[in-house]
Amino acid sequence: MDVDIGNALATEASPGISRAALERLDEDVAQAHERIQRGRANSDHGYAALNLPATAHPDTIRAAVEPFDDADHLLVVGIGGSALGAATLVDALDGDLSVHVLDNVDPAHINDLLQSVPLADAAVNVVSRSGTTAETLANFLVVRDAMDQAGVDWTDRTFVTTGDEGPLRDLAGTHDLPSLRVPDDVPGRFSVLSTVGLAAAVLDGHDIDAILAGAGEVADGLTGSLFECPAYAYGATTYALDARGAAVNAMMPYAESLETYAEWFAQLWAESLGKDGLGQTPVRTLGATDQHSQLQLYRAGPRNTMVTLVRPTERTDREIPTTDIEGLAYLGDSSLGELLDAEFAATEASLAAAGRPNVRVEIDRVDERGLGELLYGMEAACVLAGELYGVDTFQQPAVEWGKRAARGLLGGGEFEEADAVDAKTTLRIE
Amino acid sequence: MDVDIGNALATEASPGISRAALERLDEDVAQAHERIQRGRANSDHGYAALNLPATAHPDTIRAAVEPFDDADHLLVVGIGGSALGAATLVDALDGDLSVHVLDNVDPAHINDLLQSVPLADAAVNVVSRSGTTAETLANFLVVRDAMDQAGVDWTDRTFVTTGDEGPLRDLAGTHDLPSLRVPDDVPGRFSVLSTVGLAAAVLDGHDIDAILAGAGEVADGLTGSLFECPAYAYGATTYALDARGAAVNAMMPYAESLETYAEWFAQLWAESLGKDGLGQTPVRTLGATDQHSQLQLYRAGPRNTMVTLVRPTERTDREIPTTDIEGLAYLGDSSLGELLDAEFAATEASLAAAGRPNVRVEIDRVDERGLGELLYGMEAACVLAGELYGVDTFQQPAVEWGKRAARGLLGGGEFEEADAVDAKTTLRIE
Repeated sequence: MDVDIGNALATEASPGISRAALERLDEDVAQAHERIQRGRANSDHGYAALNLPATAHPDTIRAAVEPFDDADHLLVVGIGGSALGAATLVDALDGDLSVHVLDNVDPAHINDLLQSVPLADAAVNVVSRSGTTAETLANFLVVRDAMDQAGVDWTDRTFVTTGDEGPLRDLAGTHDLPSLRVPDDVPGRFSVLSTVGLAAAVLDGHDIDAILAGAGEVADGLTGSLFECPAYAYGATTYALDARGAAVNAMMPYAESLETYAEWFAQLWAESLGKDGLGQTPVRTLGATDQHSQLQLYRAGPRNTMVTLVRPTERTDREIPTTDIEGLAYLGDSSLGELLDAEFAATEASLAAAGRPNVRVEIDRVDERGLGELLYGMEAACVLAGELYGVDTFQQPAVEWGKRAARGLLGGGEFEEADAVDAKTTLRIE
Repeated sequence: MDVDIGNALATEASPGISRAALERLDEDVAQAHERIQRGRANSDHGYAALNLPATAHPDTIRAAVEPFDDADHLLVVGIGGSALGAATLVDALDGDLSVHVLDNVDPAHINDLLQSVPLADAAVNVVSRSGTTAETLANFLVVRDAMDQAGVDWTDRTFVTTGDEGPLRDLAGTHDLPSLRVPDDVPGRFSVLSTVGLAAAVLDGHDIDAILAGAGEVADGLTGSLFECPAYAYGATTYALDARGAAVNAMMPYAESLETYAEWFAQLWAESLGKDGLGQTPVRTLGATDQHSQLQLYRAGPRNTMVTLVRPTERTDREIPTTDIEGLAYLGDSSLGELLDAEFAATEASLAAAGRPNVRVEIDRVDERGLGELLYGMEAACVLAGELYGVDTFQQPAVEWGKRAARGLLGGGEFEEADAVDAKTTLRIE
């Protein structure tokens, strides 16, 4: 993963960072790096995620999913960090399976899905660290029942990824289901490179050793200077731009297959840094599509936004056929990939010409290795940014509040603020 | 469409609006409404979009697409406003066809798509007002060539939606293709209720009269007071919250089928209001999924965000099977729809309890009528907000700049700032 922060400099953009301020910030980066390395060495909560390239045990993952290698479909039943890592990998890579992520609990959507998937040919991976997440367990109960109805033995088609205790762990014991362990001290949004994200990737036919090797290369390159470490350069620059007014970070990959990656990034960034009144709002966008939409705002709206432009430097390409349609001959000398790259360069120049900060992130290809670099790189960037903000990067009290609230409203436990729901202030216009 | 702004009041949230400020703002709304009605009466540029419920000519649209009613697949070739309206409708409604939107020019994605779609069973709708949009024409040339290669007569399978002049209009004349006219003075992002959005909906088996009837009901209800008009209540409240610090508007529908609607909204909002240093950043999210991700930021991050919670009040539902798994019995007394509604209420209460502004938008069902109400309602809200901001709601100079830039870089025309691309400031970390 390479990063170019030239268009985030104060000479080019407002908000922007001066080179002198970058130099000063680099001293904080050095200190933050020491804390990160200490956390990694102790496998402290959260920091342990940065050790996954060495601790993920790919052979264990391959062995656990081996009974399902006849499947044509995979249902990943999980939500948030228990779903987005797997979804990011299988959406980015050209795979063998139809993978369906059951994260939401929309009944219309689940009904459609269960009608269209041949359940006898499906594997089901239920993912929840606690084994109690309401959406995940509800969806699992529905899927299990649908398999029963279809005459499919769900115990033959299901494996669980969960902690050492809880309802899912008990269920695996009772029915002798293959199971994987969610690693200790790795928050969900940092779990893509663990059992949580990699099991689906194996089943979908991908080389998880290469994913981990890409991640490991970035891990090995973490040094105490943003000028030598692309991941830290990204984390430090976003922090500095936010401090100078870029409250919004538009993540804009120029590859259709990285659309889910942008959603993964949005979770990583929002849930890790959004606390204590701090944090940058991540916005998931897609190049070139959103040039015809969001670019207006990013170029001419408030100066509160930075744009992160991500691209692979090599792509599968496809020639644009020559044409005699008047005015379009220029397209026929080109390819779709050249067009997309021209759009990338045009957007970057467009933002720079308007003095709007943007950062370029490049990987060689959207393949296992490139993804490993990108995902680990963004995790390291996020951890660094959390150190610079001084927040509890690895906690998510507001998300936990919402989980308790949903359970409480259904009668599944205490919800001390249930009265707030009944007492809602209403000013209704009909 | 009903709107509840109770949780945006200053007594409940910060930023929030006092009732006195709302009363004062309502005088501006009355004036803005007069300008809007004058614009509609004259069919002025942009304002003409608000007349579409009466001017869309659904019979013309049905007649134009009738030759393709044997299709099993529909390829919509367009980008931005020429694609998102159709995508929003077909993704929200349960339809007859597999609809594929070719907006991006990612070669890997296009290659995959053209390998998976049986082109002989597909209809192709090429959509571009000017007939010159680089991405759209490039994709069309690729699709046409793929049909040739597959022995399919593309002239039998293609219809165009374009203006009175330009390469696509000429092409339709030369090859006698069915064609639809993009209506005058309707910007792309306001064109969902015209030929641009509705043709795909007809082919996908939907009742476009009901869509237009839902929109028409909202149109008939536009009055000079935000206290009497839900669309204006939404537009005025978002404007007032932005002025008080809510620079971000997270659009969060609680229905999986409305995920594309949130993307449509993001274009509408960003491209219409993002200019002159003004405008609110739209963020597309999805309930309940993003409760496990973005909610942390919205509840505990900077006080720069409002959340728009959208839901249908009636849904198809599905019972959650009863279970004897310990700790989960409470789920079995419930349904997926009740769980989703509980999550909605919990999120609303969660934000309110933290004093974070949010607005509730409700439609009866995600059906043709409800969609017509929602889409028209948000368009009217956007036009009102544009009047309050005092911006040129219906222009998009920064998007046009990007289009010229992309063409220019490929050698298809002038691009005065091409030098900016070559002169890019680089600070690269590898």
